[in-house]
Amino acid sequence: MNDTICAISTAAGNGAIALIRLSGSEAIEVADSIFVSKRKDFSLKNRDTHRVYFGTINDQYTVIDEVLLSIFKVPNTFTGEDVVEISCHGSQYIQQQILHLLIKKGARLAEPGEFTQRAYLNGKMDLSQAEAVADLIASTSAAAHKIAINQMRGGFSNELTGLRADLLQFISLLELELDFGEEDVEFADRTALLKLIEKIEQVIIHLIKSFDLGNAIKNGVPVAIVGEPNVGKSTLLNAILNEEKAIVSDIAGTTRDTIEDTFNYNGVTFRFIDTAGLRETTDTIETLGIERTYQKISEAKIVLALFDANDPNEKVAKELNAIIEKAGEDKKVILVRNKLDLSTEIRDLEIIGLAAQINISAKEKTNIDALLIEIGQAMQLESLENNEVVVSNVRHMEALSQALESLIRAKEGMKSGISNDFLAMDIREVIHYLAGITGEEITTDEVLGNIFGQFCIGK
Amino acid sequence: MNDTICAISTAAGNGAIALIRLSGSEAIEVADSIFVSKRKDFSLKNRDTHRVYFGTINDQYTVIDEVLLSIFKVPNTFTGEDVVEISCHGSQYIQQQILHLLIKKGARLAEPGEFTQRAYLNGKMDLSQAEAVADLIASTSAAAHKIAINQMRGGFSNELTGLRADLLQFISLLELELDFGEEDVEFADRTALLKLIEKIEQVIIHLIKSFDLGNAIKNGVPVAIVGEPNVGKSTLLNAILNEEKAIVSDIAGTTRDTIEDTFNYNGVTFRFIDTAGLRETTDTIETLGIERTYQKISEAKIVLALFDANDPNEKVAKELNAIIEKAGEDKKVILVRNKLDLSTEIRDLEIIGLAAQINISAKEKTNIDALLIEIGQAMQLESLENNEVVVSNVRHMEALSQALESLIRAKEGMKSGISNDFLAMDIREVIHYLAGITGEEITTDEVLGNIFGQFCIGK
Repeated sequence: MNDTICAISTAAGNGAIALIRLSGSEAIEVADSIFVSKRKDFSLKNRDTHRVYFGTINDQYTVIDEVLLSIFKVPNTFTGEDVVEISCHGSQYIQQQILHLLIKKGARLAEPGEFTQRAYLNGKMDLSQAEAVADLIASTSAAAHKIAINQMRGGFSNELTGLRADLLQFISLLELELDFGEEDVEFADRTALLKLIEKIEQVIIHLIKSFDLGNAIKNGVPVAIVGEPNVGKSTLLNAILNEEKAIVSDIAGTTRDTIEDTFNYNGVTFRFIDTAGLRETTDTIETLGIERTYQKISEAKIVLALFDANDPNEKVAKELNAIIEKAGEDKKVILVRNKLDLSTEIRDLEIIGLAAQINISAKEKTNIDALLIEIGQAMQLESLENNEVVVSNVRHMEALSQALESLIRAKEGMKSGISNDFLAMDIREVIHYLAGITGEEITTDEVLGNIFGQFCIGK
Repeated sequence: MNDTICAISTAAGNGAIALIRLSGSEAIEVADSIFVSKRKDFSLKNRDTHRVYFGTINDQYTVIDEVLLSIFKVPNTFTGEDVVEISCHGSQYIQQQILHLLIKKGARLAEPGEFTQRAYLNGKMDLSQAEAVADLIASTSAAAHKIAINQMRGGFSNELTGLRADLLQFISLLELELDFGEEDVEFADRTALLKLIEKIEQVIIHLIKSFDLGNAIKNGVPVAIVGEPNVGKSTLLNAILNEEKAIVSDIAGTTRDTIEDTFNYNGVTFRFIDTAGLRETTDTIETLGIERTYQKISEAKIVLALFDANDPNEKVAKELNAIIEKAGEDKKVILVRNKLDLSTEIRDLEIIGLAAQINISAKEKTNIDALLIEIGQAMQLESLENNEVVVSNVRHMEALSQALESLIRAKEGMKSGISNDFLAMDIREVIHYLAGITGEEITTDEVLGNIFGQFCIGK
């Protein structure tokens, strides 16, 4: 496991500079065997950590490149092993040559995420922090970046540590009672214990709820625009994207291709889900029974229900109610009445379950900004701004759900007066699931393989 | 000119790591203003050169990323100015955020090649070495890489310095005579001087000739396959590429699309030039008069003249002679007789100007390796292996040609007994043109703009 791994760590392709990274017990020795400095009798072995040297990478007498080489010695390195970074000219040919040379000298090509996996295994970060590294690299919006960097820097880990401390306090009291089991003592006030368990429950529920936002932010918040043919769906899409990506025409059903477009609002990426299906002539809200329409709605977080401003209120209300009912509670349905330019007399409708209603002209780009504000508010982005911990990882979400299940069992048990043995067992389970998130317990090769296999090579 | 520039120096896109580079008098100050170390009262200003520090990049209270930051202080830096390199997580979002932050703090986005341009202007390398940096990054084959790295490491510069020393020796003798002009003395033996000038002439001619190879290697050696319809051009192309890129069928004229394919042989990239035009039914070597065919041949360095093994010798000889004549001296025409599997009785032809002849079966992949060896030999790659200086840059080639012109004028002048004044003027011109290559003389902004404008950003 301590063998020396190497990989190109910068993006694929030609650049001015590329970075090749080595980690492992032989990292410095391997690098030393191909690095030539102008200084006499130069060796990397007797050099201090965190230094940079200029020299050449040589394959016997052939100079491959002039490079800057940085050495990092244990313990203060990313992986917790000796690390060498070679900063070479960014031609792919040179990168490949140096990589081949390193392998020839005894290094091995790193698996995806193997550097970070080693950092985790060597205790440089916990598992949730390691996972955040991949999220950080993949983040394309301010919000996704914020969640990832908070997690990488231990925000989530601290939250879990807090929970764990509470649970350990709980269990230590229980176990003290168990030690005096015969005597039937009660060191812990049962009311206080129940309060503690309910407090923990609230924190976990809050974390689980945050996943809805975290996941949407990580993958882009899916937005569906639904409406009858020719009501202006493509025009609205264009107005939001502020560019003419979709083909717009007066002929109903013009938009046939799948349009996967994203836009950023307040640092959050919103992603239009395959709206084409909704626009097909046979697949409109007129024919609400069609499953396909509802499937699209079911994929969305936000549904923009688009109507013509001239549509009678009764019709709008009827169809909108059907959409809201089908959409369910976790979707935000926004009523958008388009073609404001053609009709100025629109009154707000009183419809239960509607997140917002707004009148626009997609064509004239009237009220588009106001619509974006409504979309942003519908996603309740405040929790992000308050620097709250937001769960964005499916594995964490699952572990939290399992922990919650055990916790609720413990709570119910307490209420029905189960024995301390069983109560302790339930609480131990909660601790077990929470510990799985940070990788303090369980961490089979399979779990680790799943996690780090999704990393890019070189990280 | 000493303002502080910044750029992302690694390839575009997401990677594990990205590198952002700063150079200029304020580089350390700018970096210091956004870099936060865990250590108390940490400042980059009082740190030694060539050190790496771990910390965060902060935009006020917001952490953008955890990074490794390297500082390089004058004079031992790439640009000859203070340099800071920030190694951050390779998300494009983070890269952009850090770049924006640097600009906000007073750095300016670097122009393409501006780091290298500064290295040149600060005397860290001469102009031909700076140009080699771009070639090195762009090199995709061992041969192109070898030419570029030799040039970057001063191989060509040394050759030019040698020439210059010879020329200065020549001119100092001439000028000594000029000082004693009235007395009509001759310090320099005229025969020896002529010998010296002829020696220099030979070196320059040799360099100019090397451009043919250098340019071909840099851009890929263009190879044309010409032949009648259905003679097996696509099959041969496939056999060489060893994959079924072109559509092969028995129907003449199947290949209509432009096929731009390259293959590597002995570290040299060979590039098939748009051979489709040659395969069109109306555009074969039967109709040799067609200009288009010759245009394709004129673009090639190597012409593979493909015939059916069953073609009568007279026919082959006649058409081949026409090709050789049209191709001219600087092309290598190789006679390839295909379909060896269908006819085994082929005798070599005696044709003047033919680089090689070989019998193959493209279908059965017989003798393809031997053909590749012939192609390699036709390009005379020995000079590369002997570590000779190979000129690969058009600007250098033009300067050498101008230098040669002046040198020949000097030589002719000597023979016809022109005055030392005129002779000295011609030699000064030679020196001037050669100095232009390394940038010791002339280097208008326009010249520099042309050179560095072709670099990638961040180099």
